[in-house]
Amino acid sequence: MLGKARRLALLAEGRFTPLDAKTAVGVLRYRPAEVAAVLDSTRAGRSAAACVGAGGAIPVVRDVAAAAALGADSLLIGVAPQGGELPAAWRSAVRAALERGWDVLSGLHVFLADDPEFAALAAARGTQLLDVRRPPAARRIAAGRAAALDQTVVLTVGSDCNVGKMTAALEVERALGAAGRGAAFVATGQTGIFIADRGVVVDAVVADFVAGEVEALVLEAARDAGIVVVEGQGALAHPAYSGVTLALLHGACPAALVLCHEAGRDAIRVGGAASDWPIAPLPELVRAYESAAAWLRPARVAGIALNTRSLDEAAARAACERAARDTGLPATDPVRFGAAPLAAAIIAVADAARPAGAAQGRIRATAT
Amino acid sequence: MLGKARRLALLAEGRFTPLDAKTAVGVLRYRPAEVAAVLDSTRAGRSAAACVGAGGAIPVVRDVAAAAALGADSLLIGVAPQGGELPAAWRSAVRAALERGWDVLSGLHVFLADDPEFAALAAARGTQLLDVRRPPAARRIAAGRAAALDQTVVLTVGSDCNVGKMTAALEVERALGAAGRGAAFVATGQTGIFIADRGVVVDAVVADFVAGEVEALVLEAARDAGIVVVEGQGALAHPAYSGVTLALLHGACPAALVLCHEAGRDAIRVGGAASDWPIAPLPELVRAYESAAAWLRPARVAGIALNTRSLDEAAARAACERAARDTGLPATDPVRFGAAPLAAAIIAVADAARPAGAAQGRIRATAT
Repeated sequence: MLGKARRLALLAEGRFTPLDAKTAVGVLRYRPAEVAAVLDSTRAGRSAAACVGAGGAIPVVRDVAAAAALGADSLLIGVAPQGGELPAAWRSAVRAALERGWDVLSGLHVFLADDPEFAALAAARGTQLLDVRRPPAARRIAAGRAAALDQTVVLTVGSDCNVGKMTAALEVERALGAAGRGAAFVATGQTGIFIADRGVVVDAVVADFVAGEVEALVLEAARDAGIVVVEGQGALAHPAYSGVTLALLHGACPAALVLCHEAGRDAIRVGGAASDWPIAPLPELVRAYESAAAWLRPARVAGIALNTRSLDEAAARAACERAARDTGLPATDPVRFGAAPLAAAIIAVADAARPAGAAQGRIRATAT
Repeated sequence: MLGKARRLALLAEGRFTPLDAKTAVGVLRYRPAEVAAVLDSTRAGRSAAACVGAGGAIPVVRDVAAAAALGADSLLIGVAPQGGELPAAWRSAVRAALERGWDVLSGLHVFLADDPEFAALAAARGTQLLDVRRPPAARRIAAGRAAALDQTVVLTVGSDCNVGKMTAALEVERALGAAGRGAAFVATGQTGIFIADRGVVVDAVVADFVAGEVEALVLEAARDAGIVVVEGQGALAHPAYSGVTLALLHGACPAALVLCHEAGRDAIRVGGAASDWPIAPLPELVRAYESAAAWLRPARVAGIALNTRSLDEAAARAACERAARDTGLPATDPVRFGAAPLAAAIIAVADAARPAGAAQGRIRATAT
């Protein structure tokens, strides 16, 4: 991961739960073979699966020394705390890791490499502080270039943050592969980057250049595959993050969207808690995303990815059926029931004639 | 300006034209009393008005020494070059200004204070390098708080970049004052900040925090005035900047929008040149902006601000009449014909009952 083979200890002290430890859960689900242990002294002795439903028997341990005994050689910050700072209580774990000569991988807003103590320690031990949220130095200006691609671009979009857009994108990529269609996953958030080993945390980019970074990622991924599946961020109706969402939509110029929603969630989360801002019904969200795409390049929602983590099996199936009926689109929980229906709908888009709007995709002026 | 009374020299070397020297033109139009001279050796000897139609008899001079002879004591970078770097040919002017003990005011993407030579020179002479594009250190997360204000928030939006959103906002603010309604102008770009002496260059903010910065600016401005007029940026259909535009719309939560357009422009400009991306007809733009606002908080377009700089008087009047007929809204060129019709429409919004959607504006969770 990120430059070399690693045995990871995932730091999730006091917060190793499905909602809090989103990054740790993503790595456990998609790269479990590289995880030696999870650090959470409040849950030490349990298994990862018992705590978050992913990672199987990977043990939760008390501290860095215990993870080292299990062969760990790198520390990954597995939680994105509110505010983006490293909790004071976690400094000792980072220090202990560096003292053992481990690299530390972080997606925090505050860069570990800018911390004088950590930077000095890393320099002394010859280890690396890998801050994946640090934006690229380039200042890229988008020009809608992705609309001119022959490859089919797919973007996952959502009703809110943290409803499963990254997971849906990864499951769709897998299902496309299983259907014999090579697809490339484009990571746009910290967890996605840990899983894919490349990408850009787009919400950490200066606003002027977000669409430009997305465009560059999509053009690069399109060299390798006929279908490019881009991880979405935020939501068009989110009071804080709608701008990031629209920059992704217009930077990626997708032909197909997968609309992600958590069954039962009816209010947008702001600052980690439910707000009074309601989530619109799925058919309205479909219209909103298709309208916003069409301001630049028409796209259609190919299917619904429903996150049913709060429901039992029967309720989950009923929720998918209801979403399909309400929208007239295939709907599935890609983790629980598989992403094959979404992949099939995307393949249909890829195999159909390119939409008329795509012909607009050649820009006369390509100055960057 | 920015901390003290100044006599400005506006640097626009080789580019003192209405389209290139947008920042210089804005300062000349709204703060002419503080400008001693414009620097452009290729146009030395002419007047500002002869070059850009603003600034009256303010002279264009060859270099910093000539501006000093006219009493200048500060240098303001009056052009935002493609790429955001200081052109190499301009370094000598910045150096000469610092050597004379002048402050240098800049809205470039590249910060002058981060340039070792300039920083050393400024430190040695006790002068300031004021980079207005440098974002605030705070990481503010928006929560739609501006929707709960009793004050009326107005946002200028546009068909493209550089069509007159800042100018329309300033002219509307003036016209509201003339109509006896105190209004506050919120600057969101470098030129607006030079004019208003405060504000944030929102497109230089990390994407996650753009709406949060806008929200904070609006809440602060609402303490001083019953109507808050926010300078817009970008356009909802701009391939590079649509994200910034939506973050402004959802951060400011306006009740009224003023839609700005340049008469005759039919394609969006990307990287400083016309693209193949068409500009939709005004009624479609009205619908797009109202839809996007309503994802969070309903707003309506109160009027059209038409920039008719390329037309003669009769054609300009005809263009305004056509825009009014096409949209059913008041339409004017606020510079040429005054902003009174826009102010009247905004006052009508302010005096009407607050729209139903505004009641959603109280957020249960206000964690930041």
